[in-house]
Amino acid sequence: MTSQKKLRVGLLGFGTVGQGVYRMLENNTEAITSRIGFPVEVVKIGVKDGDKSRSVDRSLITTDLHEIVNNPGIDVVVELIGGLDPATELVEQALKNGKSVVTANKELMAKQGARLVQLAKDRRIDMHYEAAVGGGIPLVQPLKHQLAGNEVLKMVGILNGTTNYILTKMTKEGSQFDEVLKEAQKLGYAEADPTNDVDGFDSSYKLAILSSIAFGCQVPIESVYREGIRSIKAEDLTYAGVLGYRIKLLGIVEQIAGKGILARIHPTFIRETHQIAKVDGVYNAVWINGDFVGDLMFSGKGAGGDPTASAVVGDLIDVGRNIAAEGPGSAIPISGVAQTATMDDLVSAYYVRMRVRDEAKVLGRISMVFGDMNVSLAAMEMRVIDETDHKGEIVFLTHACREPDLIHSLARITEESLATSIESWFRVED
Amino acid sequence: MTSQKKLRVGLLGFGTVGQGVYRMLENNTEAITSRIGFPVEVVKIGVKDGDKSRSVDRSLITTDLHEIVNNPGIDVVVELIGGLDPATELVEQALKNGKSVVTANKELMAKQGARLVQLAKDRRIDMHYEAAVGGGIPLVQPLKHQLAGNEVLKMVGILNGTTNYILTKMTKEGSQFDEVLKEAQKLGYAEADPTNDVDGFDSSYKLAILSSIAFGCQVPIESVYREGIRSIKAEDLTYAGVLGYRIKLLGIVEQIAGKGILARIHPTFIRETHQIAKVDGVYNAVWINGDFVGDLMFSGKGAGGDPTASAVVGDLIDVGRNIAAEGPGSAIPISGVAQTATMDDLVSAYYVRMRVRDEAKVLGRISMVFGDMNVSLAAMEMRVIDETDHKGEIVFLTHACREPDLIHSLARITEESLATSIESWFRVED
Repeated sequence: MTSQKKLRVGLLGFGTVGQGVYRMLENNTEAITSRIGFPVEVVKIGVKDGDKSRSVDRSLITTDLHEIVNNPGIDVVVELIGGLDPATELVEQALKNGKSVVTANKELMAKQGARLVQLAKDRRIDMHYEAAVGGGIPLVQPLKHQLAGNEVLKMVGILNGTTNYILTKMTKEGSQFDEVLKEAQKLGYAEADPTNDVDGFDSSYKLAILSSIAFGCQVPIESVYREGIRSIKAEDLTYAGVLGYRIKLLGIVEQIAGKGILARIHPTFIRETHQIAKVDGVYNAVWINGDFVGDLMFSGKGAGGDPTASAVVGDLIDVGRNIAAEGPGSAIPISGVAQTATMDDLVSAYYVRMRVRDEAKVLGRISMVFGDMNVSLAAMEMRVIDETDHKGEIVFLTHACREPDLIHSLARITEESLATSIESWFRVED
Repeated sequence: MTSQKKLRVGLLGFGTVGQGVYRMLENNTEAITSRIGFPVEVVKIGVKDGDKSRSVDRSLITTDLHEIVNNPGIDVVVELIGGLDPATELVEQALKNGKSVVTANKELMAKQGARLVQLAKDRRIDMHYEAAVGGGIPLVQPLKHQLAGNEVLKMVGILNGTTNYILTKMTKEGSQFDEVLKEAQKLGYAEADPTNDVDGFDSSYKLAILSSIAFGCQVPIESVYREGIRSIKAEDLTYAGVLGYRIKLLGIVEQIAGKGILARIHPTFIRETHQIAKVDGVYNAVWINGDFVGDLMFSGKGAGGDPTASAVVGDLIDVGRNIAAEGPGSAIPISGVAQTATMDDLVSAYYVRMRVRDEAKVLGRISMVFGDMNVSLAAMEMRVIDETDHKGEIVFLTHACREPDLIHSLARITEESLATSIESWFRVED
């Protein structure tokens, strides 16, 4: 088949994913070898701390990461360090040295992916990143290949397991964000510094990657609107339930006619009957609507060492097949930068919760403001909070309207003191 | 990039899928062209009846199908005729002529796939068949690529839209099979001769294809156990609901330790909380459990012209990319034949419904028979059908037991006249 006798792998990073990859290659050696045509061997593992005790042969370990990307005895570099520095430079060097690269690094792919994949393509080698989105769920490659003939009309995803776990817990237990976050941190489902997950950074990288593939041009990370889950109150989850919705941190992307691609991450009310509303806990899911394929959904474990290793090893097998067949690689570069829209271009339904004084005409006057701004109301719930003090709370669901109109309405309601406070507002997907 | 200026396609067959492919190539020309690097052009369409009025240029049409597979001006043949004859011979001829092939033909792939893909691989051309299973849902290629490092522990699928539509209707309306089938035929959801769908042939082809890929060796269609949905009564669907289950026609495949691969299609009780139990109507879904990836689910429209065209065009884009890069193709042959198990090797839980005479000790004696045969009972429902005539009906759910033990128990219960009739029994997935 080829003169190559094995696929020689250099791992950058040996955390839970790296160890998962190593174990998968060991446990499933026979099947993997037969799929490629020759065996895979991990020949070097680059780590930060060389003295830490590890279950692998000491001779495999190096702290000199450049030794791996420059090693002529390595065919493919698996980058599992995460972040931009030093990953960007290492990956670039590996590609320039003619080594294929497999990475699970979403930040790298969201920010530097277009350039790096082009480097690989130019050298007829591979650059794959299935593990960067959705852990073990096949998403990146199916979008590039099996769904590539479709115009993607809309894509909606739960792209982060930590936040989905937190929201699922808050919904089931009626508890507030801070308590559940602490619990998740104790259980290892959230990191000590949870910003990357709960403020939506992680999701935004993944959405930028998927959007770029789906629309065939780069959707810059700076254009992705991002809002995390810290502002969600137990009260909003309760109202959501009453109204027949769930609140999920959704990544949503679609083409806004005449404007461009709008990609956004934010907490969203989604009807509880929608398939994606039922995806709970650490599971991830992506729902896609294409002009020919109709609607599809992929779901599974979106994080964790083993599921992520599954995606990395799948990519490695493809790299091995390419080397075995002496092929040109299957890196698919994305050319051009997308025209993007902003949140001002969004037309959506909304949920709004506000505090009011329980006085005659307040509701009527608020409705008038909404009406003046072309925000038409679909549902309303009102309850008294403090009878002696005449305090009440109102929850509105609007029909689809322009986001600037909604925002201006809320500003005017505050200005005219019709509400004592706007407690929260969220976008609604129907 | 290459001297090739376009991808010249010959279509065999121009039914709903063929027309969908043609329309998709026309509607999404720009994106498809940019993904391949050059345009796709349908240069010939082979049909049975050349006189039928069609929306395409008359000069494209031919009734001589061999003209297409032998035409040196065609790069890739898309086979959408279905069945074995003349598809097998035409596909074989096309491959021998060095043309890549894309097919949606499940029977062909289940029965002749291993040989044909090997032909393509030997010639360094492509043979893809994503559309053969699950319509537009990416399944075939993700199993071959992104999931290829996993040992597949179990795969459970709803692989036929017609039967899922019928069962969904029967469940919702409490109606019997015959009525719903007639209605489905009127609406075009079932064919005049429904055998291929309702007797499970279509599902069995698809399961054989997926199983062969998942286990990396050919699972012969003859080894796939097959049972259709004709025997399901409205009564069983009602009991299923009461017990917390749904009845679905499931394709299930797993490795039976020490025996081999067991692939089977049959109506199955599945817990209503399982993701796949919620897949209704014409939707298909495949749930996969892999040793590293954990559990995944893919769902979407499993049939219809447009979704199937989506998969065909996805494959065509890959063929085009390969030709553009002058690569060796990405046909992945399956070598060797699987060791297979039989239904005698199955260990499963069961649902049994029987008619009895409402007499003292009947229930005790039946329980004794089950116990003697190592069939232990998990749940039981009994109701009187005719008080004056002392007729009753009993429904049992068993714990997991060997299938031969269940069958022998039922034979002995009948022999000893403990039941007046065994009305039905089904396998249960928990």
